[in-house]
Amino acid sequence: MTESSKRQATASEEALWRIFTVPEAPDSTLSIIEQNLSQNLAGFLRESIVAVEKPLWQIERDFQAHHIPQMPNFVSDYAESLMQKLVAHSVHTAAPSFIGHMTSALPYFVLSLSKMMVGLNQNLVKIETSKAFTPMERQVLGMMHHLVYGEGDGFYKKWMHSANHSLGAFCSGGTIANITALWIARNRLLKADGDFKGIAREGLFKAMKHYGYDGLAILVSERGHYSLGKAADVLGIGRESLISIKTDANNKIDTAALAEKMAELQAANIRVLAIVGVAGTTETGNVDPLHQLADLAEQYQCHFHVDAAWGGATLLSNKYRHLLAGIERADSVTIDAHKQMYVPMGAGMVVFKHPSAAHAIEHHAEYILRKGSKDLGSQTLEGSRPGMAMLVHACLQVIGRDGYEILINRSLEKARYFATLISHNIDFELITEPELCLLTYRYVPAQVQKAMASATPEQLQRFNELLNGLTKFIQKRQREEGKSFVSRTRLTPARYQRQETIVFRVVLANPLTTEQILHDVLVEQDQLAQLDKEFYPKLLQLAKELSA
Amino acid sequence: MTESSKRQATASEEALWRIFTVPEAPDSTLSIIEQNLSQNLAGFLRESIVAVEKPLWQIERDFQAHHIPQMPNFVSDYAESLMQKLVAHSVHTAAPSFIGHMTSALPYFVLSLSKMMVGLNQNLVKIETSKAFTPMERQVLGMMHHLVYGEGDGFYKKWMHSANHSLGAFCSGGTIANITALWIARNRLLKADGDFKGIAREGLFKAMKHYGYDGLAILVSERGHYSLGKAADVLGIGRESLISIKTDANNKIDTAALAEKMAELQAANIRVLAIVGVAGTTETGNVDPLHQLADLAEQYQCHFHVDAAWGGATLLSNKYRHLLAGIERADSVTIDAHKQMYVPMGAGMVVFKHPSAAHAIEHHAEYILRKGSKDLGSQTLEGSRPGMAMLVHACLQVIGRDGYEILINRSLEKARYFATLISHNIDFELITEPELCLLTYRYVPAQVQKAMASATPEQLQRFNELLNGLTKFIQKRQREEGKSFVSRTRLTPARYQRQETIVFRVVLANPLTTEQILHDVLVEQDQLAQLDKEFYPKLLQLAKELSA
Repeated sequence: MTESSKRQATASEEALWRIFTVPEAPDSTLSIIEQNLSQNLAGFLRESIVAVEKPLWQIERDFQAHHIPQMPNFVSDYAESLMQKLVAHSVHTAAPSFIGHMTSALPYFVLSLSKMMVGLNQNLVKIETSKAFTPMERQVLGMMHHLVYGEGDGFYKKWMHSANHSLGAFCSGGTIANITALWIARNRLLKADGDFKGIAREGLFKAMKHYGYDGLAILVSERGHYSLGKAADVLGIGRESLISIKTDANNKIDTAALAEKMAELQAANIRVLAIVGVAGTTETGNVDPLHQLADLAEQYQCHFHVDAAWGGATLLSNKYRHLLAGIERADSVTIDAHKQMYVPMGAGMVVFKHPSAAHAIEHHAEYILRKGSKDLGSQTLEGSRPGMAMLVHACLQVIGRDGYEILINRSLEKARYFATLISHNIDFELITEPELCLLTYRYVPAQVQKAMASATPEQLQRFNELLNGLTKFIQKRQREEGKSFVSRTRLTPARYQRQETIVFRVVLANPLTTEQILHDVLVEQDQLAQLDKEFYPKLLQLAKELSA
Repeated sequence: MTESSKRQATASEEALWRIFTVPEAPDSTLSIIEQNLSQNLAGFLRESIVAVEKPLWQIERDFQAHHIPQMPNFVSDYAESLMQKLVAHSVHTAAPSFIGHMTSALPYFVLSLSKMMVGLNQNLVKIETSKAFTPMERQVLGMMHHLVYGEGDGFYKKWMHSANHSLGAFCSGGTIANITALWIARNRLLKADGDFKGIAREGLFKAMKHYGYDGLAILVSERGHYSLGKAADVLGIGRESLISIKTDANNKIDTAALAEKMAELQAANIRVLAIVGVAGTTETGNVDPLHQLADLAEQYQCHFHVDAAWGGATLLSNKYRHLLAGIERADSVTIDAHKQMYVPMGAGMVVFKHPSAAHAIEHHAEYILRKGSKDLGSQTLEGSRPGMAMLVHACLQVIGRDGYEILINRSLEKARYFATLISHNIDFELITEPELCLLTYRYVPAQVQKAMASATPEQLQRFNELLNGLTKFIQKRQREEGKSFVSRTRLTPARYQRQETIVFRVVLANPLTTEQILHDVLVEQDQLAQLDKEFYPKLLQLAKELSA
């Protein structure tokens, strides 16, 4: 127990007044933490995060109390305990060897700007509580719209700051962005017509009866993000009406199967609400053939949404943006700035091709969001919202197109490098090639690979089961060791007769990840495999039996 | 143009690497801004924000470009321009004289903690990207649950950290919280039954056919928040099925009218999905009779939700929590920590009476949110989410129950003080008494009040029209003068035969607002009234004619 923790804070008007006006002394724990953060976040975290992982049930012990504490605490005491109990056991998502998820390192300047953003505490729901932040957010949405659709100067002059229009919506993340897009699609399809006042007013049940459809459907590849299922549920369409279309060997939607399903649904009087193209699947990073999806959406007159939450940032690379060709034909596009645009968590966006798209979800309120005002809150799913757009604005200005060009290209090329590394290592197997900066692979000892080449389907299945166990073991153990982190997922590769195959999943967006780190990851995984006493020996045994 | 702005940054791998690793020099603009922020946010903002308001169209000029800039910018240059173009024209929501909306001053320590939170960049969707943040968020939800429901120790021991349960959901704000609650209510009502697999899977259209209802309804007072209309739209229920019940003279729901409507709907085979009680209406701050609403919800077996987004913090006051009596009978309760709990924007919460409530909206995904994991993302509307719960945790610990007791009580008592001040001023009229810390009033010169007392209904209507114009004029002008800010809304008070009456709306949650400021606000409004050349002279003229 430190000296300070023996003190006891007391609540008094004066003490409370002080926490709203007087900061801690410069040598307090909080100030020191802050200085460290300012000076070198990465270095600070490397020192502070324990390498040996504590099990969750142990961490939970520090978060058992369910009573709000009666007595106040000194800020410094609290900050100290926070460092030990929370920060020390948080995940070092910015570490160059944390290559398993879509969170990455952040440019240092966003930390200072975040503090400013929080200090200003603007509420973007309306101009009265955000003033200049409103045109700033509209500009960011305009820039993102231009990145996707590239309309002419006149278009943006006319619409970017138009009170009754919006080129997109800022939201907390890709899930809300996808829900917003499909909400608009649903309301535009089931709009007012004759006596019917529209789904927004009369609801889905009456809408279906009015239009005489037997059902609705949203079509997406089997690699679509789970937020789409949530959207189908929330919007009253139902998860079963989110129809999953199989993918080809490259994890791209099978457009022949899609066209067939569209025709089949039409014949059954089920109206397709939207086709969703995936531009960067979460599990394999592949991009659907967007032009072909746009053609089908045109043919069937349905909404075409592209979920580019993760892959959308690729548009910032002139060298690789062709990988997303056809995205400019989408009615709406989701892009998360907190993924490959290096903005902190909480910066989702959806852009709309048509400036009046959001009319389908417009709403007003008297004390706020009066008609004709430029308040952004009248066309968003969320109400009160922070000024996160400022951090996107900052990154776009400070990094610039030239900077993003380098960052994005480096990520894609690093993924290609890692893929080559895996392919050339006789004990590893690349499962999916990186189209963007995401790839999957697994550890398969050379002698096992050899035995599998001539195995019967039954034997192959047995191998796969054992390999699944081994992959899981390695991934868990690697996370626990705390030196590096890859995630894992389950795929059904065509080459393994669509058997469930557990794989390592790697996302290479952190600019600080070096080629050396990638080498080390493979070395570590190789060593960890030897530690497994269950699947690894059985695999070798089975390989031996078959080659005998 | 400053010296530095003539420099031109260029994009190179080395320069980019540096923005991810090396902070600015301590004398850079960004560092200076940060130091100022740390030293005294309030003082800094007072100096930096221009008092004379710039019209929006002028501000928009600085946010016209729709091309993402090609070249990178130096951080210091960008920070300088940000200060001039954005911060100087943002709204000083923390000012003690900004008493018009629900955003208030923040304790200084949340700024440093915010920077830490952003730096850690945790993603609360799952444990792999948040680790200790997950139990911490569960604890915050547990504490808020305990604040509302006050269950015993065993309850929290059993459920707080249970993998397949949640005591609530953290979300970006009250709107998402309300949608989440009503989503749960909808899915629980239209659950799987016999052959029917439940609305989540089969959708609303099939659900209605299965259950044989002719419609659904959500009932709330006419003072319900506009987010409920959005919820009814998004959830496919339709805005017209959000049925607005009139309020009594105190802006509380008329429970006789509610009971009558419930019976009427039942007779028409329209199933009431939920009754929503308002605990602190946005426009008048009144609390519905929650016990009576709970009784009706029990009688009709429907979900009882309480929207306490703003007023819920009153539960932290032992002296005043009785004003929300009956809230503990709600199935779900929305509370925004970014309103009266002094947490920055983006900290909404909904708590559930039953730990299994969120099963109705549960979802899983293979690469993330596997079954049985404690990942919070499997039971939330949003996907990726920042670690905002840490800021709530910090405020609860640092301020404590004792601290909140003082803060909340002071706010309520300040509102009562202001109400007395208004009542005793012969030129003002209190429209709604403060039940919590929100009140409404308007400026009505004494001679006009006198003339109105004996006016005919027609004359009264004419007075009201002129007063509406005057109130609008004063409110706008006051905002433009930049010394203080009150908001305005439109009510239909019983005493004015439900005529539309525009009023000033004041929220007294900022601990730094002094009694002197409240005196000054009235003096300023009195002076501003004299500047009006349209409504003010006509009012006096009309009063003169009638008294002649």
